[in-house]
Amino acid sequence: MPEPTGSRLDHWVDSYASRATAMRASEIRSLFAVASRPEVVSLAGGMPFVQALPMEAVADMTRDLILERGAVALQYGSGQGDVELRELICDVMAPTGIKGHPDDVVVTAGSQMALDLVVRIFCDPGDVVLVESPSYVGALGVFRAYECDIRHVAMDEDGLNAVALQEAIDHARAEGKRVKLIYTIPNYHNPAGLTQSSQRRRDVLEVAKRNDVLILEDDPYGLLGFDGEVPRAIRADEGEGVIYLGSFSKTIASGIRVGWALAPHGVREKLVLASESAMLCPSNLTQMIVTRYLNTQPWLDQIKAYREVYRDRRDALLESMDEYMPPGTTWTRPTGGFYSWVTLPDGFDATAMLPRAVAALVAYVPGTGFYANGDGRQSLRLSYCYPEPDRIREGVRRLGTVLAAESEMVNLFGATPRGVTGAADAPAPDLT
Amino acid sequence: MPEPTGSRLDHWVDSYASRATAMRASEIRSLFAVASRPEVVSLAGGMPFVQALPMEAVADMTRDLILERGAVALQYGSGQGDVELRELICDVMAPTGIKGHPDDVVVTAGSQMALDLVVRIFCDPGDVVLVESPSYVGALGVFRAYECDIRHVAMDEDGLNAVALQEAIDHARAEGKRVKLIYTIPNYHNPAGLTQSSQRRRDVLEVAKRNDVLILEDDPYGLLGFDGEVPRAIRADEGEGVIYLGSFSKTIASGIRVGWALAPHGVREKLVLASESAMLCPSNLTQMIVTRYLNTQPWLDQIKAYREVYRDRRDALLESMDEYMPPGTTWTRPTGGFYSWVTLPDGFDATAMLPRAVAALVAYVPGTGFYANGDGRQSLRLSYCYPEPDRIREGVRRLGTVLAAESEMVNLFGATPRGVTGAADAPAPDLT
Repeated sequence: MPEPTGSRLDHWVDSYASRATAMRASEIRSLFAVASRPEVVSLAGGMPFVQALPMEAVADMTRDLILERGAVALQYGSGQGDVELRELICDVMAPTGIKGHPDDVVVTAGSQMALDLVVRIFCDPGDVVLVESPSYVGALGVFRAYECDIRHVAMDEDGLNAVALQEAIDHARAEGKRVKLIYTIPNYHNPAGLTQSSQRRRDVLEVAKRNDVLILEDDPYGLLGFDGEVPRAIRADEGEGVIYLGSFSKTIASGIRVGWALAPHGVREKLVLASESAMLCPSNLTQMIVTRYLNTQPWLDQIKAYREVYRDRRDALLESMDEYMPPGTTWTRPTGGFYSWVTLPDGFDATAMLPRAVAALVAYVPGTGFYANGDGRQSLRLSYCYPEPDRIREGVRRLGTVLAAESEMVNLFGATPRGVTGAADAPAPDLT
Repeated sequence: MPEPTGSRLDHWVDSYASRATAMRASEIRSLFAVASRPEVVSLAGGMPFVQALPMEAVADMTRDLILERGAVALQYGSGQGDVELRELICDVMAPTGIKGHPDDVVVTAGSQMALDLVVRIFCDPGDVVLVESPSYVGALGVFRAYECDIRHVAMDEDGLNAVALQEAIDHARAEGKRVKLIYTIPNYHNPAGLTQSSQRRRDVLEVAKRNDVLILEDDPYGLLGFDGEVPRAIRADEGEGVIYLGSFSKTIASGIRVGWALAPHGVREKLVLASESAMLCPSNLTQMIVTRYLNTQPWLDQIKAYREVYRDRRDALLESMDEYMPPGTTWTRPTGGFYSWVTLPDGFDATAMLPRAVAALVAYVPGTGFYANGDGRQSLRLSYCYPEPDRIREGVRRLGTVLAAESEMVNLFGATPRGVTGAADAPAPDLT
C-alpha cells in the first residue's frame, strides 16, 4: 500500500525551535483557496492593481537595462542595497517631509523583510511590542515569529490613541516588561482605513520620546491619498526615535519585492548585518528596474493614475455599502489606501460567517486576523484595491444578502456559534 | 557646531535583542572596500562570471515575459513559490539523483534565505549545529544570528569525517545538548575545494540516521563539476532525513536571488510559514525569468559553458600556484566549483598578512572567516571564479611575492603578531 501522502506524520515534530510552535497555518487559508476562484468577488486581497502600469514601457526599459548593464544587474550586489537607488529613495520620501540620507537607507525584499529585520535585531522573546487595534496581519506574524508579547492599543477616529499608548507602556513596565517598539501605520491604515491627524502624530511621538520607546512607522500607502496630499511622516520630525518603512509594492509593483527601512545610523548598521545574514543582498536586477523606472518613467503621474483607480473603487465600495449594509453596521471611510474596516451589529461573528459568504461568492478577511488576542470577531476588512468597480458593487451586494440572512439567524437563535477559531498566523499574499 | 556624523553614538545600544550582539561587522570589511579597486586582483570574491550569459537572449526573453505576463510577474505571488518553477526545479535536481516533488520545494530569495529559514524553524539559542572545518561563512553567520552552538567537525580528503562526526554528536549529547543539524556542502566545498566521495556520503548519512539528526545539504555548485559528471546527492538516498538547498546563483545568475529548499513534507509546511513571515513571497518577476529561461534557453549548454570558464580558471590558479607558492604551502585541487583552500607554512598568519597582500594588490579571504572558533589563521581561501586567467596568474604571482617576504619575516622574528583579529561575522557579498 502506498503511504497516504496527505497525512504523513512529521518525523521532526520534536526538533523545532520554540519560535516555530507559534507558526501555524491559518484555518481560513483553505477558504481563500476557494475564494480565489473567478466567480468569487474577493474583497479580501491586498493586491495592487499593477495592470495599470505601462507594460510596454516597463518591458522595453527592462530589456535595455539587461543589455546595457546586465553584468551588474545579474550579479550579487551590496547588502545595504544599490547606492543609486538609495539616493532615489530619499527623493521618493521627500513629499512626506523626511530629509533622509542614503547612508541610512537599507533596501530589502519588500518592506515585509524590513519589518522582519527590525524585529530580529530588537526583540527577545517576551519583549513587548505595542500595536494598533486592529493591526497589519503580516506585522503580527513577524512579532509572533520572534515570540514578542503583542499588546493592542486602542484607536479612535484620529488613529492610535496616545493616552491609551501611555497607559499600555505604564502597564507593561509595571509588570517588569521591556517595551521595545511602537508599531504604527499612520496613513490609510491596514486594515482600519484610518489616518492619524497631525496633532495625533505629535502626541504619539511625544509619548514615545517621553518613554524612550522606538517608533516603527510603516508607510506603504502614504503616497496614495485620494486628495493628492501626502501626510507628514512622524519620521520627518524625529530622526533618532523612528524607523521608517517604505515600499514600492503599491506605487510601482509588488512582484519586484523592493522596499526599504530608513533607520537611525547605529540601527542601520545592525540592519545591514542582519540583512546580509538573511539573504546576502537584495536582487540587483529588481533594484535596478526600480532605479531605471524612477529615472526614465513619469512615476509621479503613474502614482496619480493609481490614486484615481483606487479612489473610484473606494467610491464604488462606499456607495454600495450605503445601499446594501443592514442597519447597525458601521465602517470607516478611507481617504487613501486600500481598505475599509467594517463593524457588524452585536451578535454577528465575521469569522463564523466567512464560509457562508464564500458560498455566496464573496470573500473578506475576518477581523480576528488583525488581532493577536482573539478580538475582532465582530469586524471584517474589505479591500477595494483589486476588483473593478462593478465587481466591488456586486461583491458588496452579495455581502449584504449574507448579512441579511445572518441577521435573521441572530434574531432567531442569538449569537452565531464559533465555527471557525483562531487568527491568521502568517500573512498569505492575499492578506497583505 | 554640527554633530560629527561619523561618530554618532547609538541611542538604542541597550535595546537590542540578545541575538543582535552576535552581529558584528568584520574587521576585514574595510580592507575589502580597498580590495574592490580595479588595480587589485581579487581572489577573495565568490561572484559567478555572469558575463558569460547570452545577454541579448535574456534581455529579449524578459521583455517578452513582461509584455505577455506582466500582470502576474509584477504582482504578489505564492509564499511557497511559483508552481511551474517548482516543477522545473525538480527537473534541475534530477541529475543529482533526487526525485523531488514540487509540493516539497520552497522557493527563496537565494539559498541563503533558505538557510536562514531552516535555522529559524529548528534552532533555539544554544542548540548544536555541526559544521565542517572550515565551513561557508554565510552559513556561520546564520547559525550565529540564531545563537547556535557551532561545532566544527574535521574534514579529510574525502570531505566531512564521519568518525569525527559521530564523536562530535556523542560529545555534545554527553553535555546534555540538543544536536539539531549537520550542515554539509558535499560538492566542491566552499571554502575547502573538496568533494565527498560516494562512500563518505553513505557514511555521513548512516551517522545522521543512527543518531536521528537532520542533514542540511547545501549544494550550490553540484552542476559545476569540471568532468561534467554530477555527484549523487545525499538527499537522493534519503527523503525524510535531509533538507537539500539549491540555487540558481551559480548556474544562471546571482543578481536574481532565486534559490530553493527541498524539505520533508512536514518541514516544508513550516518553511513556507516562516518564509511568508519573512517576506510574504519571493519575487514573481525573477521566478518567472528563471522559468522562462529554463523553458526557452539552452540552459544545460550554458552550464557547460560556465564549467569550461571555471575549469580554465581553476587550471590557471593551480598552474601558477605550482610556480609561485613557497615550499611548505599546500592547497586543495578542486574538481569543480569556485575555490581552493590554501594552508600556509607553520608560523604564517593569513589574517595578519592580509593588509600586506592588499598593499601588494592581491586579495583573498583569511581562513578565520570560515571558522566560528578562531581557527584558520594559517589558511586562506582563493577564488578563481571571477578574474580572467591572466589576472589569476598575476594575482598568484603577487601572492607568492608577499609570502616570500612573509617567510623572511617569520624566519627572522618568528610567528607574525596578530594585528587583525576576529572572523567575518556576516557574509559580505564578496565572501559568498
